[in-house]
Amino acid sequence: MGRWEPGAQGRLQLAALELFAKRGYSAVTIADIAEAAGLTKRTFFNHFPDKREILFAGAGAFEESVVNHLRSIPHDVAALEAVVQALSIAGSELARYREFSILRRDLIALNVELRERDLVKMVSLTDAIAVELLKRRVGATQASLAAQIGISIFNWAYDKWISGNDLDLSELMRTTLFDVRSIVDVVAT
Amino acid sequence: MGRWEPGAQGRLQLAALELFAKRGYSAVTIADIAEAAGLTKRTFFNHFPDKREILFAGAGAFEESVVNHLRSIPHDVAALEAVVQALSIAGSELARYREFSILRRDLIALNVELRERDLVKMVSLTDAIAVELLKRRVGATQASLAAQIGISIFNWAYDKWISGNDLDLSELMRTTLFDVRSIVDVVAT
Repeated sequence: MGRWEPGAQGRLQLAALELFAKRGYSAVTIADIAEAAGLTKRTFFNHFPDKREILFAGAGAFEESVVNHLRSIPHDVAALEAVVQALSIAGSELARYREFSILRRDLIALNVELRERDLVKMVSLTDAIAVELLKRRVGATQASLAAQIGISIFNWAYDKWISGNDLDLSELMRTTLFDVRSIVDVVAT
Repeated sequence: MGRWEPGAQGRLQLAALELFAKRGYSAVTIADIAEAAGLTKRTFFNHFPDKREILFAGAGAFEESVVNHLRSIPHDVAALEAVVQALSIAGSELARYREFSILRRDLIALNVELRERDLVKMVSLTDAIAVELLKRRVGATQASLAAQIGISIFNWAYDKWISGNDLDLSELMRTTLFDVRSIVDVVAT
């Protein structure tokens, strides 16, 4: 797998991550980031609306990818199965951003502002998945719950995936799905 | 069931909700809220650290209640079952805030700042539940997933509960749990 070769946007992201890791997210200004990337503040604002968004630039593309993969899965595949498949494929495509993902996760854990933004992005993704499921004629309750459970599975598996070595995201998702089943199956009827 | 009889904190909350509903969350200042409640800004800050928090004052108490109920459920009850029971009991105790909950939900839906805060509170609650499950010797994966699925069930059922008439939260939670089971059960093994 090739290394990530960044353009202006990528250079700003890398510079930002290095500075955030060194000084802490709050202490770094947009001017610092632009300078470290050898670019101007103006260029920064051509790529990102604010400092927070530098860590979430991929969220829109990822959501689009998940939705596209979900659309390509036959309608006779059950809702949660389809969600898990779509997230597995879209997630696996992020393999080259693994290093970025680890740094990003650790920064988000330390800063409430970033955590808030991350949660909002996750809700947006969850809603987009639920909307796709509705189009597949899944009922409203099932669509919302399958999207939420799928995202819970993804978050758990993705975190293991970027932390571990040589694990396959699809397999981790599958294992986590079995964990969900074992949790749900023992509930009283 | 008695009506909610507010002290200074409650008066500030009611005044705030009325003003938010009339003018929109962003257009209302802390001074406006204090004035409408017949109190000073200083009193406001004795009760709330900021304007956002006025809508989340009950979150800490609710989390405590959920955790306490969870602790009182025998350890041989399965993880998700225990979570659903604890959330059902703690949620039912919020019956007298139903009107407040509806206004609050509608405000949160309209404002990204509020949605962010709401999500952070939900994650805090989810984490608190997961920690309790770990103490019950549930494994880490299962604890996290059971907490997340329990919260998804709760959010869905609670929203129906405050919107509907004469529905029982515990029953709605139970129905939603069955929906979760039907979603998970059809997944390929």
